[in-house]
Amino acid sequence: MNVLLSRDNQVRAMENIVTNAERYFGQFCSLLASYTRKTARLRDKADQLVKQLMDFANTENPELRATMKDFAEDLAKVQDYRQAEVERLEAKVISPLKLYGAQIKQTRADIKKCKRVQNNEIKQLEKLEKLRQKSPSDRQMISQAETSAQRASVDTNRSTHHLAETVDAFQEQKLKDLRRIFSDFVTIEMVFHAKAVEVYSSAFRTLESYDLERDLQDFRTKMRGVYGHSEARPLTDNSPSPSVPWPLASQSVQSTMAHQEKDEEESEADSVEEIPLEDLKGQQQGRHV
Amino acid sequence: MNVLLSRDNQVRAMENIVTNAERYFGQFCSLLASYTRKTARLRDKADQLVKQLMDFANTENPELRATMKDFAEDLAKVQDYRQAEVERLEAKVISPLKLYGAQIKQTRADIKKCKRVQNNEIKQLEKLEKLRQKSPSDRQMISQAETSAQRASVDTNRSTHHLAETVDAFQEQKLKDLRRIFSDFVTIEMVFHAKAVEVYSSAFRTLESYDLERDLQDFRTKMRGVYGHSEARPLTDNSPSPSVPWPLASQSVQSTMAHQEKDEEESEADSVEEIPLEDLKGQQQGRHV
Repeated sequence: MNVLLSRDNQVRAMENIVTNAERYFGQFCSLLASYTRKTARLRDKADQLVKQLMDFANTENPELRATMKDFAEDLAKVQDYRQAEVERLEAKVISPLKLYGAQIKQTRADIKKCKRVQNNEIKQLEKLEKLRQKSPSDRQMISQAETSAQRASVDTNRSTHHLAETVDAFQEQKLKDLRRIFSDFVTIEMVFHAKAVEVYSSAFRTLESYDLERDLQDFRTKMRGVYGHSEARPLTDNSPSPSVPWPLASQSVQSTMAHQEKDEEESEADSVEEIPLEDLKGQQQGRHV
Repeated sequence: MNVLLSRDNQVRAMENIVTNAERYFGQFCSLLASYTRKTARLRDKADQLVKQLMDFANTENPELRATMKDFAEDLAKVQDYRQAEVERLEAKVISPLKLYGAQIKQTRADIKKCKRVQNNEIKQLEKLEKLRQKSPSDRQMISQAETSAQRASVDTNRSTHHLAETVDAFQEQKLKDLRRIFSDFVTIEMVFHAKAVEVYSSAFRTLESYDLERDLQDFRTKMRGVYGHSEARPLTDNSPSPSVPWPLASQSVQSTMAHQEKDEEESEADSVEEIPLEDLKGQQQGRHV
């Protein structure tokens, strides 16, 4: 093999390094940005659940109300940590990966320049070769062409040497960035998960300490109140009511019934919806946890 | 107030309890199913990242290859735990919430039946009232109507009593289910996050122990090999190459250049894409972690 082909191999090897980095860093950037967006959507959905839990808490008796509010607050806290996770991923993982695109463009421009210089050397050598074949006796022209070819060769050497240094620095930076970016990713995730464990432990204790019996007593007392004065113990009172002696206005009965029907319609429109769960399973096989 | 209105209030209070449960349990079911689906999508995205990390590892030197493979395996392990989280949420949170819909339908049917019985009592009383106004002297008709009204009243009493027991049981079950379902949710999440902390700690150690210098030496040795025999130390050799004495076939030069241009085109199409990050921030204000 000769020096020209060796240089060509060299430049192509460097080009492969940059192309490979561009390809995979581009993929990492795109996938991690998507991962971060999906994390943000998970946070949004959990925030909606927090809101519903709060609304629900306000419709319940004090005991359950307090428990549900505490639980909802813990769930909200996890989402705050998830929001911090999203912001940190954006700043310390996705942004550096994006910046990488600019660095790759610069190295690619250096490779292009080096190839131009190499091509010029090849042109000069072709010119020299043609001269040697067509006018082997024209010593002056051949000598000039030899000088041009030699100058081009010096240029190529310098340029290739510069490129080798550039690619060496590029590779070093690539390895350092790779380690730093993924270490940051792991740290961000680790911090989030650790905080989540902490908050959910507190949420678990909240749910554990909920006094269901007390809540149920509250409910029974409240319902007894609703049953009214005329029927103080409805759950144990089995005796038939006395025949009704007083007159009853038809109109008031009608209006009560109309109201009941309206209530019924409203509540039936609000039934538990069917949720397709098939897409939860994903395409993976062989999960082994 | 009278007994009829008291009973009406009672049934409506029970109806409200069931409607409220239906509304919020429906919301919890729908939101938690969505939360689980989004978790599954996060897992899918991370699985894609694992695949790219593995592919990338195979293009790198042994030191980085080993590190990236270990890291990718840890990331895959987190996704296995996420898959377990998804399956457990489905089985222990979403399914019980869905089953709740059936229970609510049964209680709602009991309320409807009780209302029919109540309405019958009201009809009998209206009939009796009309008779008293139109034919106050028809003692036999009035007596029959009074018996019917009394029978209807006994039915209503029995039915309302049964309904009160049903709603009491419903409420007790609701509170128990609520505590169990959200305790299960918290436990499932807690286990997942704890496992994630464990695996990411190992991933962090993997990245920490990566020997960047050794990798860089490998790279330099490899590149020196590419520079070929004629130029053994390209990074330190600054002397110009000698003028080129051998003839060069134009065709082989052309084909080399054509190949270079093709490479360039392919790689430039592969540039780092721009990813919109605006939607990561969500609509929330006042995050404070």
